[in-house]
Amino acid sequence: MQVIKNPNKSEWSEILKRPTQTVGDIEGIVNAVFQDVSENGDRAIQRYTSKFDGVSLDSSVVTSEEIDEAIQKVPQKLQNAIRQAKENIEVFHKAQKTPKVEIETTNGVQCWQEKRPIQKVGLYIPGGTAPLFSTVLMLAVPAQIAGSKDIVLCSPPNKEGKLAPEILFTAKLCGVTKIIKVGGIQAIAGLTFGTETIPKVYKIFGPGNQYVTVAKQLATKYGVAIDMPAGPSELLVVADESANASYIASDLLSQAEHGTDSQVILVSTSESIIEAIADQVERQLDVLPRKAIAEKAIANSKLIYVENDNIALEMIDEYGPEHFIICSKNEALYVEGISNAGSIFIGDYTPESAGDYASGTNHTLPTNGFSKAYSGVNLDSFMKSMTFQKISREGILNIGETIELMAEAEGLQAHKNAVSIRLKDLK
Amino acid sequence: MQVIKNPNKSEWSEILKRPTQTVGDIEGIVNAVFQDVSENGDRAIQRYTSKFDGVSLDSSVVTSEEIDEAIQKVPQKLQNAIRQAKENIEVFHKAQKTPKVEIETTNGVQCWQEKRPIQKVGLYIPGGTAPLFSTVLMLAVPAQIAGSKDIVLCSPPNKEGKLAPEILFTAKLCGVTKIIKVGGIQAIAGLTFGTETIPKVYKIFGPGNQYVTVAKQLATKYGVAIDMPAGPSELLVVADESANASYIASDLLSQAEHGTDSQVILVSTSESIIEAIADQVERQLDVLPRKAIAEKAIANSKLIYVENDNIALEMIDEYGPEHFIICSKNEALYVEGISNAGSIFIGDYTPESAGDYASGTNHTLPTNGFSKAYSGVNLDSFMKSMTFQKISREGILNIGETIELMAEAEGLQAHKNAVSIRLKDLK
Repeated sequence: MQVIKNPNKSEWSEILKRPTQTVGDIEGIVNAVFQDVSENGDRAIQRYTSKFDGVSLDSSVVTSEEIDEAIQKVPQKLQNAIRQAKENIEVFHKAQKTPKVEIETTNGVQCWQEKRPIQKVGLYIPGGTAPLFSTVLMLAVPAQIAGSKDIVLCSPPNKEGKLAPEILFTAKLCGVTKIIKVGGIQAIAGLTFGTETIPKVYKIFGPGNQYVTVAKQLATKYGVAIDMPAGPSELLVVADESANASYIASDLLSQAEHGTDSQVILVSTSESIIEAIADQVERQLDVLPRKAIAEKAIANSKLIYVENDNIALEMIDEYGPEHFIICSKNEALYVEGISNAGSIFIGDYTPESAGDYASGTNHTLPTNGFSKAYSGVNLDSFMKSMTFQKISREGILNIGETIELMAEAEGLQAHKNAVSIRLKDLK
Repeated sequence: MQVIKNPNKSEWSEILKRPTQTVGDIEGIVNAVFQDVSENGDRAIQRYTSKFDGVSLDSSVVTSEEIDEAIQKVPQKLQNAIRQAKENIEVFHKAQKTPKVEIETTNGVQCWQEKRPIQKVGLYIPGGTAPLFSTVLMLAVPAQIAGSKDIVLCSPPNKEGKLAPEILFTAKLCGVTKIIKVGGIQAIAGLTFGTETIPKVYKIFGPGNQYVTVAKQLATKYGVAIDMPAGPSELLVVADESANASYIASDLLSQAEHGTDSQVILVSTSESIIEAIADQVERQLDVLPRKAIAEKAIANSKLIYVENDNIALEMIDEYGPEHFIICSKNEALYVEGISNAGSIFIGDYTPESAGDYASGTNHTLPTNGFSKAYSGVNLDSFMKSMTFQKISREGILNIGETIELMAEAEGLQAHKNAVSIRLKDLK
């Protein structure tokens, strides 16, 4: 752990720099798979599944029998936990519904804005040793509330050609309409072009490795929207002497276990709490099953001492953390002042884990400083706003001349004509 | 104009196909300019301005003297028109403000969502023969309402090294904080990397030619967000025998004059109104100053007869038009039923021009079928939503076990620990 004291502002950007990711050599592979899938559909998909996942599947669509079987395998206690988490996520995302915005901007000029669901969405859930069923909750719950018609989930099969029972249980619980056993680049390509089995969707959500990330970026070139660009997960904690060192240490470690490239930063106005936290991290690290991973992330982590809260806030805003924990007696200054962060966790009893699983907020968040311009996934991510206008005779008489003058000044005579022809009839 | 009667559903996608845009060869140029600007800053910018705009500028920043001078040159009537348009746009976009969403998802678990402004935004306004000051309104007004701190406008200078007075007047009126005379790829590169003169921004908005479009796409690779991918402008009108043929014709032509690649489509349940509109288009076309452009767009336009409104609606949804005019006695069916469209214009006295300039809705809209997943520019385009959570002792006792169970099932022991260490103290 690197301790940095009172860095000069000119050094901030260097200190807070994320490791650059080179994706150059991946692009060739991703392009080739995309072309293959667009030309050969399911045949190409099957070939890649066999090659990358080591399993040959007759059909990649999960059947209702498979789902029923899976539900039997998920322990009742875990089922109840997933249900409680779902309820909180549902309550919070339902609260995000916005009414129609309707206003008469000028007499006779009625304008309104309505949000309508994106009808076809694809949710990507990575495979690997641990089943990320929590991400199914975070994506399928708002998709269902938004009213998306087709909610297609893709996830890579294991060597037995199966998906984890927890994923199937959660997908069924949250109204996913089709579950397909396909992963990696080929899944994203399938959702982009559509195949005999995989529906073409309008927007793709979800995390993944570098291949999936590059594939999602490529999908946007073919007119498919994505939730946001992805990068390694990150946590920034601001803490003063009022903070509980062992709690903070446990939070830093929960971030560190995600991957060796996880970003872990502590900013503090107290040198003694920095020492106490560093000490606690060493102790708690020792007993972790994923110690090897967490250790590497912790080795790259930074503990930064600054003189006061205002400097701390400015530095944090420059970084724009994905997760931001506030344990400070000056809590309000940070809560009100922060401009750039994905999700914010306040006080001693609000670990990042709470938002990762069950508080109700979404855990699909902007990394890599993208919080400066991007929202985390929320209800609106599954909707688009459309505007409507209806103008009466009186309305066009009120704004007609303005439109004529502006269209003429922009050299667009036919735009002007469209108004003049109506005004002529009315005058 | 191509008239198509009762096309088979299997033919729809071919009929509604947009012309494919090939951007392959542009990418090389865009990449080279980006690299040059990232390495050489203002020096590179000056070089490109001299090369592409044919003018050598000592300083590219517009001074307050230049703005004062410009204001003198804009006729009072046009100033008033721009002011009326601004007022309507302001009223409609202010109405889009959403309150903090706050909810206790479980006893002791307080979650809320707040929208905060994107602090640094770049607005690109194309140059050319006609000054697109209306786009300044559409971008700067919501940016100012959102509360963006730095609102940077870039637009290419003319041969005299100036911007159009209408653009300067409107930019000043709408609170743009910095105006820079730079256009094309180099403007987007400057906003992406920052130079001595051009501030690095977090999100870039605005229309442009193919070079600007590809440059904006490339900007996203460097972590800068963009409003939306761009394509040629398009209008789809649905009309039945109750519609006014000459009004509809004037609307189709106002779309057609944008460019030879503009998309113009009429869908109708009445063969006689199709004929009447086609006839009116020919008549009105003849007197247009931009006849040469409009004529080409009209030649590619499609007039489609379908048997009933439900078929029409389904077809329109498959197309997902940027602008959608409804002139039908079954107006409500379309207004309520449409899923995919950017901005919708209802009834005889609501020409597209109204929304282009002065009704209050935004004219920066998703083209190319992107309305299936993207919103047009609106207040939220200049904000991002952030989530907050604060959990009390009671709260963590209520959801702690759920988090522990889920984290364990996902193989993330440190995530579990972060909760267990707190629960231990509380139990």
